[in-house]
Amino acid sequence: MSGSTYGTIFRISTWGESHGRGLGVVIDGCPAGLPLSTDDIQRFLDRRRPGQSRYATRRSEADQAEILSGVFEGYTTGTPISVLVQNQDQRSRDYGNIKECYRPGHADYTFDTKYGFRDYRGGGRSSGRETIGRTAGGAVACKFLESLGIQFHTYTRSIGDIYIPESDICFDHILQNSLYMPNNHYAQKAMDFLEDCIKNKDSAGGILECVIDGIPAGIGEPVFEKLDASLAKAFMSIGAVKGVEIGDGFAAASSTGSQNNDSLISREGQIQKGSNHAGGILGGISDGSRITIRAAVKPTPSIAQEQHTITKSLENTSLVIAGRHDPVIVPRAVVVAEAMAALTIADLLLINMSSRLDRIIDFYNN
Amino acid sequence: MSGSTYGTIFRISTWGESHGRGLGVVIDGCPAGLPLSTDDIQRFLDRRRPGQSRYATRRSEADQAEILSGVFEGYTTGTPISVLVQNQDQRSRDYGNIKECYRPGHADYTFDTKYGFRDYRGGGRSSGRETIGRTAGGAVACKFLESLGIQFHTYTRSIGDIYIPESDICFDHILQNSLYMPNNHYAQKAMDFLEDCIKNKDSAGGILECVIDGIPAGIGEPVFEKLDASLAKAFMSIGAVKGVEIGDGFAAASSTGSQNNDSLISREGQIQKGSNHAGGILGGISDGSRITIRAAVKPTPSIAQEQHTITKSLENTSLVIAGRHDPVIVPRAVVVAEAMAALTIADLLLINMSSRLDRIIDFYNN
Amino acid sequence: MSGSTYGTIFRISTWGESHGRGLGVVIDGCPAGLPLSTDDIQRFLDRRRPGQSRYATRRSEADQAEILSGVFEGYTTGTPISVLVQNQDQRSRDYGNIKECYRPGHADYTFDTKYGFRDYRGGGRSSGRETIGRTAGGAVACKFLESLGIQFHTYTRSIGDIYIPESDICFDHILQNSLYMPNNHYAQKAMDFLEDCIKNKDSAGGILECVIDGIPAGIGEPVFEKLDASLAKAFMSIGAVKGVEIGDGFAAASSTGSQNNDSLISREGQIQKGSNHAGGILGGISDGSRITIRAAVKPTPSIAQEQHTITKSLENTSLVIAGRHDPVIVPRAVVVAEAMAALTIADLLLINMSSRLDRIIDFYNN
Amino acid sequence: MSGSTYGTIFRISTWGESHGRGLGVVIDGCPAGLPLSTDDIQRFLDRRRPGQSRYATRRSEADQAEILSGVFEGYTTGTPISVLVQNQDQRSRDYGNIKECYRPGHADYTFDTKYGFRDYRGGGRSSGRETIGRTAGGAVACKFLESLGIQFHTYTRSIGDIYIPESDICFDHILQNSLYMPNNHYAQKAMDFLEDCIKNKDSAGGILECVIDGIPAGIGEPVFEKLDASLAKAFMSIGAVKGVEIGDGFAAASSTGSQNNDSLISREGQIQKGSNHAGGILGGISDGSRITIRAAVKPTPSIAQEQHTITKSLENTSLVIAGRHDPVIVPRAVVVAEAMAALTIADLLLINMSSRLDRIIDFYNN
Repeated sequence: MSGSTYGTIFRISTWGESHGRGLGVVIDGCPAGLPLSTDDIQRFLDRRRPGQSRYATRRSEADQAEILSGVFEGYTTGTPISVLVQNQDQRSRDYGNIKECYRPGHADYTFDTKYGFRDYRGGGRSSGRETIGRTAGGAVACKFLESLGIQFHTYTRSIGDIYIPESDICFDHILQNSLYMPNNHYAQKAMDFLEDCIKNKDSAGGILECVIDGIPAGIGEPVFEKLDASLAKAFMSIGAVKGVEIGDGFAAASSTGSQNNDSLISREGQIQKGSNHAGGILGGISDGSRITIRAAVKPTPSIAQEQHTITKSLENTSLVIAGRHDPVIVPRAVVVAEAMAALTIADLLLINMSSRLDRIIDFYNN
Repeated sequence: MSGSTYGTIFRISTWGESHGRGLGVVIDGCPAGLPLSTDDIQRFLDRRRPGQSRYATRRSEADQAEILSGVFEGYTTGTPISVLVQNQDQRSRDYGNIKECYRPGHADYTFDTKYGFRDYRGGGRSSGRETIGRTAGGAVACKFLESLGIQFHTYTRSIGDIYIPESDICFDHILQNSLYMPNNHYAQKAMDFLEDCIKNKDSAGGILECVIDGIPAGIGEPVFEKLDASLAKAFMSIGAVKGVEIGDGFAAASSTGSQNNDSLISREGQIQKGSNHAGGILGGISDGSRITIRAAVKPTPSIAQEQHTITKSLENTSLVIAGRHDPVIVPRAVVVAEAMAALTIADLLLINMSSRLDRIIDFYNN
Repeated sequence: MSGSTYGTIFRISTWGESHGRGLGVVIDGCPAGLPLSTDDIQRFLDRRRPGQSRYATRRSEADQAEILSGVFEGYTTGTPISVLVQNQDQRSRDYGNIKECYRPGHADYTFDTKYGFRDYRGGGRSSGRETIGRTAGGAVACKFLESLGIQFHTYTRSIGDIYIPESDICFDHILQNSLYMPNNHYAQKAMDFLEDCIKNKDSAGGILECVIDGIPAGIGEPVFEKLDASLAKAFMSIGAVKGVEIGDGFAAASSTGSQNNDSLISREGQIQKGSNHAGGILGGISDGSRITIRAAVKPTPSIAQEQHTITKSLENTSLVIAGRHDPVIVPRAVVVAEAMAALTIADLLLINMSSRLDRIIDFYNN
Repeated sequence: MSGSTYGTIFRISTWGESHGRGLGVVIDGCPAGLPLSTDDIQRFLDRRRPGQSRYATRRSEADQAEILSGVFEGYTTGTPISVLVQNQDQRSRDYGNIKECYRPGHADYTFDTKYGFRDYRGGGRSSGRETIGRTAGGAVACKFLESLGIQFHTYTRSIGDIYIPESDICFDHILQNSLYMPNNHYAQKAMDFLEDCIKNKDSAGGILECVIDGIPAGIGEPVFEKLDASLAKAFMSIGAVKGVEIGDGFAAASSTGSQNNDSLISREGQIQKGSNHAGGILGGISDGSRITIRAAVKPTPSIAQEQHTITKSLENTSLVIAGRHDPVIVPRAVVVAEAMAALTIADLLLINMSSRLDRIIDFYNN
């Protein structure tokens, strides 16, 4: 099925494998007139690019984005924007030993069962490199949303047990450390922890968080295309994500109604909220306040320890995974999550334009 | 937008408001030849029906399902199945006092902003009664999946801080207590806790869990229509759900790769897993083992305490919500979650039929 | 598959069989704030209602529409509008003799092959009564489009060889004769011809035409969701339609570029066209001028003559179709075509709102 | 909107402008295990490639297809297949004079109105070169359908008034003349006619026809995703197509029921039809016999005569179109139509697999 397409009005279709000719995305439905350059996309790709720190795979890829269509004289034309990133360092010999057996925690077995065979080189389509297409698409969605005053901050909230308390979050720090943590002190602790992981031939998980400001009230479509439901799918579609929560999330389950309800207050003609346990979404529709969403990311499944597994011919065996792998996925997933949030919101924001007759009449009569 | 439609091949479109003429669903794409009666649907509706216990709203509705189309001589015909549930006890006078002000924790404000006005009677479309349509649709999806040997167990895992440990879960108990908890002892503790909530004019949240057995490996479409991503959307689309997790979920974030990876083992020609931290899904595709998914449900926002809020004309006010409300939503959301899981899996299971050329050729040559 | 859903933003899902409990439609994505009553829908249903003239089936159905949801205090709320029409005169004994054999020109054989069996009573889902749902949905779309100044005229252009020349079309006549022809004189000739058909136990075909004024330029999405492509699908989805053309249609195939191109002229700051061979659509996008679309409708397949056919068990047999059937389908298909055109245009008109960044910024900043 | 995506399960997303970096397609949902090489795609592209005869634009493009993903060791993997065709001969100076004015019969004005500006070089996205993506996608769909025994013959049925009678159609001739006519004698007459057109600085239209054999009965989804409705949209989405008909098409409108009904006959346990006026489709579902579909193609709008038109600033002007243009579009549209038919049928054929419970149970139990 066409599982590589995302969105209804603002829509992307991604393609590409870890060790194929390249990866890319077709962005369809981006409004005409948006200033767009390769740099806008490259900035996003650089945030997920490998080889940048000790805590990310050392595969060396420039991941240079090329825009092949949909932009004319510096502006989007309303027609599909095709973005191409060519693979350079494919070093497929590293993966020869996993051709015949299934890596634990990976999609090798499930792909083989579903499709009858698989492109085993570097995980093929199930590789983390798959996210290049959606990250490029998200960069365009972000540029579009910024023109409406919408801002994103996405970062690593925790790695292993090292969790940054609300009060210690400092957005300025996010780009100051290679883990994209909003507190350099916690980032240093996390790096120490990751050193231990590497020493133990092990890997770590963590939680990423995305906060979004400036979203107008009214975005999200009851009852199945709710904003929170769509964001949950967006985040859970990122490989290695195992949980998603909005606002207080799982903590709300052990709260009470009197604690969890956000009171509404009128101040000088403006609506304010006494708190934001809801994370900016009520009934699946944005309420105009900050949106908060978190995702739990599992530890990198590729570890250097010996693991028990089976071969394609169902023989028991053991496996040591060589190659270049991140000891933690979270930092590189941060930009992917931001991309997915932006794509989701861009789509629902365009869809929301048709919710009220009076505004449609205004639109067509001007 | 058409936010009330769910699914691609097996698709439902729901409709109806809390205090309108009725609620219902059109189920399109259900395969022909499935034996189906009103009873199959009624069994599901009865699990979410109000007025059944002290811990659920005392609104009295029979919620009788009528099948209006798509079934002939006891079997589905492959054409749309229309199910209607007529509203009886509409008692709209109870809601008169919320016509002009916005209830905290409800969608009143967001609906008004999005649509310009709202059907304020009982929450209109944002009422919990909206789930009647999807529950009826899910009943049909479940019947279809059962014919393929797929089984669901869905239950209340926790209420407030009362959480049932893995080892104490007993499926047989689920239908033995009005909270749908898989342990009668914990259910009693939860009931005591709810008594306190009621006494305090407050409400409680909780966690529901759905485990699914018998799903063939291969279900789910990379990279955006993954099984886990689709289930996350399905669950998060249920009103009051604020978080979703698969397998170990958020716990995986503080685990390590060596702990979290599930080893594969071959035993007498069968594939087994040494553990199931992944919750039955790898790379977004089912691996043939048990699928586990949990959702965090916030406390009922309608509480009898006085709350601060604003009117439609932006004046500060206070509100006491009368009417009939559940002190906890989880037990009645259990069947809704099962319905959404079934709808999601039915759809992806049908879509998966087109994944392999050899099987398509077999299909059309027989 | 979910073949009974039509549209992306303005979307309908229809259901119902000829001899089931009833038929209906769920209209989702209709903007909030549209005044809507049962009368708006009834007016459309009455135009396709049986039993109104000698040239339409004498089955007697009131076809009363009931609105079950989505309208509050006389206005649409933005939530799904469920419309129900209950069947009354089901007289299924008439159809007993076609249970075991396949009627030529009908979908009996194809339904049986596709679904394994069929609801044979009156054609089941393949009956002309299926169009009740889409007609009701189209009535709502029309009401919405009228509020934007868009007007439809739909009529029978020809029956058999009796074709009304362009210069003899008079919109005022359409509702003055039971064939919905825009010229009473030609209508009389057509009635005489139909008398002959009835006498010969035969039936007639014809062409219907829909002209639409007031559509703003810019509607339609290149390259697959073009306005003309979408209209073609809309019309061809009506049972018995075998051909569709836009503007000059098939006549353009034997024209030349110099004849067929419509020149553009500027008059007092307004754009005009020297001709309208294109039928108001260029590159799949409306150009602001009148849209013209025609559909060829085959003769009613149910005829009183003896016909050769086969039984379900593949035995040769002959069949005489009793029951109540239209000697010509075109007049009753007129309103169905108008409904489909309105649904198509409503959807694309809403989608077009997201085409330009400047207009989106205006929309959200006001 | 995402108008550049086509299909539900077998889905393509196309991109590219006449004078951009290139054009291409992402094919998603192609079943895994199909042998596929660049040659399979190139064969289709070569049939629409410019510069091949006197009657097609002399723009010189190799139109070399590159497969960038989705194929591994010669077989499709079930993941998206990205195909790229780089533009070489872009000669944009030819189009400088149409930057400021609107060509009659082209989409210049409608694109400018919809998007606020346009890529005027060679028509941008509204150029005939847009069809490269869909043709490449259709090549893959055709390869897939051939593996199921489905065969296509597509050809020019008429140019101007030169129409080949049924009895003179000879499939063997199709590839023997540059007009893709199934009769070399008529092709010669058409060439003579086109010479006159060129001499008169004019252009011609025509009709293309596609016949499809080997389609199993049961393909097509009532009531909106009917096979004929979907084919109508597919064909009408091709630039310059103004009409579509199935089977007898418009001729059926002046036929009678007794003439137009196809009788069913049983011969040695096989179902046969006494005639095929229906063109192989009843009730929107294939009946197992030959499918016939025709499209009317308007004359090339780019002609060398002086034409009246307006500038972007609404001034009257006259225009002579230089550059390289086909005197007739039909021959190059033939392969595009075949591609669209194949894409449509591939999608509906996969969707049909979910129509019957018994067959689904068989599928998953084997």
